[in-house]
Amino acid sequence: MNKIHLVGLGLLGGSFALAAKQKFPDLQLTGHDHNPQHLQDALGLGIISVAKTLPDPDSDLVILATPADTLEDLLIQTLAQIGPKTLVIDLGSTKSKLCDAVAHHPKRPQYLAAHPIAGTEYSGPKAADPGLLDRKVMILCELEKTDLQLKEKAYHLFDALNLKLRFMDPAEHDRHLAYVSHLSHLTSFMLGKTVLQKMEDEKNIFDMAGSGFSSTVRLAKSSPDMWGPIFLENKENVLAALDGYIANLTAFREKIAVEDRAGLKKEMVEINAIRGILDFGK
Amino acid sequence: MNKIHLVGLGLLGGSFALAAKQKFPDLQLTGHDHNPQHLQDALGLGIISVAKTLPDPDSDLVILATPADTLEDLLIQTLAQIGPKTLVIDLGSTKSKLCDAVAHHPKRPQYLAAHPIAGTEYSGPKAADPGLLDRKVMILCELEKTDLQLKEKAYHLFDALNLKLRFMDPAEHDRHLAYVSHLSHLTSFMLGKTVLQKMEDEKNIFDMAGSGFSSTVRLAKSSPDMWGPIFLENKENVLAALDGYIANLTAFREKIAVEDRAGLKKEMVEINAIRGILDFGK
Repeated sequence: MNKIHLVGLGLLGGSFALAAKQKFPDLQLTGHDHNPQHLQDALGLGIISVAKTLPDPDSDLVILATPADTLEDLLIQTLAQIGPKTLVIDLGSTKSKLCDAVAHHPKRPQYLAAHPIAGTEYSGPKAADPGLLDRKVMILCELEKTDLQLKEKAYHLFDALNLKLRFMDPAEHDRHLAYVSHLSHLTSFMLGKTVLQKMEDEKNIFDMAGSGFSSTVRLAKSSPDMWGPIFLENKENVLAALDGYIANLTAFREKIAVEDRAGLKKEMVEINAIRGILDFGK
Repeated sequence: MNKIHLVGLGLLGGSFALAAKQKFPDLQLTGHDHNPQHLQDALGLGIISVAKTLPDPDSDLVILATPADTLEDLLIQTLAQIGPKTLVIDLGSTKSKLCDAVAHHPKRPQYLAAHPIAGTEYSGPKAADPGLLDRKVMILCELEKTDLQLKEKAYHLFDALNLKLRFMDPAEHDRHLAYVSHLSHLTSFMLGKTVLQKMEDEKNIFDMAGSGFSSTVRLAKSSPDMWGPIFLENKENVLAALDGYIANLTAFREKIAVEDRAGLKKEMVEINAIRGILDFGK
């Protein structure tokens, strides 16, 4: 592992670079970000050492870490730019459209579809943290379509970064993430909105940290530039998840309205099973 | 402060007792819980030293820390049992119905309506923690109706426990809490339900800790015995908050459906203002 080029130097790309540099001190990191301030910050923070629009032909890896709706064009562009020994990895939160877009591309073996399940509500290079990816799950899709030797290069890096690898079909990935990630962000945004609307006429704001509010609404601080594209790229699955959620809310609302004490309790007791899932693998 | 009697020895009552005992080592703590196992646990954990159904006539305080729907009967019962120097404090999550119920009670000056904004998703005496209340907000209602000397006793204890006192009208309290606490719990339960439904046919569960899911759904582990009564006791405000929330979700859903990229971004940017509120007072 000698040379990595990054496109997108925000939270995820930046964290990836910082962690890789810790594990491989001689690594040369080049990269680009369309935001000049981010590019400047990334140089200052040592996320990359050289700013470059194009990867060097002998780059081992090109990592694409830009918003979900930019990845398709960027991936096709990047495949045209790389040499024969380079692997392109994207870190996007949706996988189906991207995998479909390059399904018959002649350089398909030089691409690996990846999604690290890691993030915070903050964004940009200043939010990057070399520990962000440590022991996190990395989902890989359509592994069989990636060249064996190039894949080995990726495994070598992922193992060094302590990533826990999982393998999923792209459609399964998108369906699954709609529920365990995209829906959480969406509901958190809407919770934030509902409270903010009320706050306009309620001046009496007090410390809500203990009420459970802050943990539930934390994701409403997330980047709109990142999450708008995710909701749209995974539109079908997100709408299905959202419709199921609204139906559940509406049914629960009805139980409150008619004061169905036993029904409310029974339903919440069943949902408490989430304890087992949250503790899964801990 | 010599003697406190507690009714309800769960997370909140237990934490209150443990913290008070740390600050006043000579304090005598008596109490009761209708759950025999909780009563046993509370004795074993030192939450109380003597199990008693009725408070001693010379108790300084009686703390009521039982589910919201039990408090009205319990408060009226307790006011009948106490001596003239005893103050009764309830720690319930809803305040209007309770304050109304005793508005014209001859012993109204011996009651203080309180609500500490503290809790976790766990319950029972084993979840009690002497640090739970430290530096948390304590909302007090209808202070003017409580006897001055008895109030001083309460202030003495609250200050010792490092509680940050706030004063609100009971109706304002219930309206406010519907948004910043009750709605968060409700949406978290429904998020848990929606994902659990999906999980039945999706075997591929992976570590979701990094996805934001676990913080958003944490409150779905909460006690149904506590939260069912809160939703019903504060029914009117909870339904209003929930209706606002469902309307917001539905409008956001529509923006996704028609791929209103700019509208989604604008809305999320506005919601990001929640950063300022979450950091309020930090």
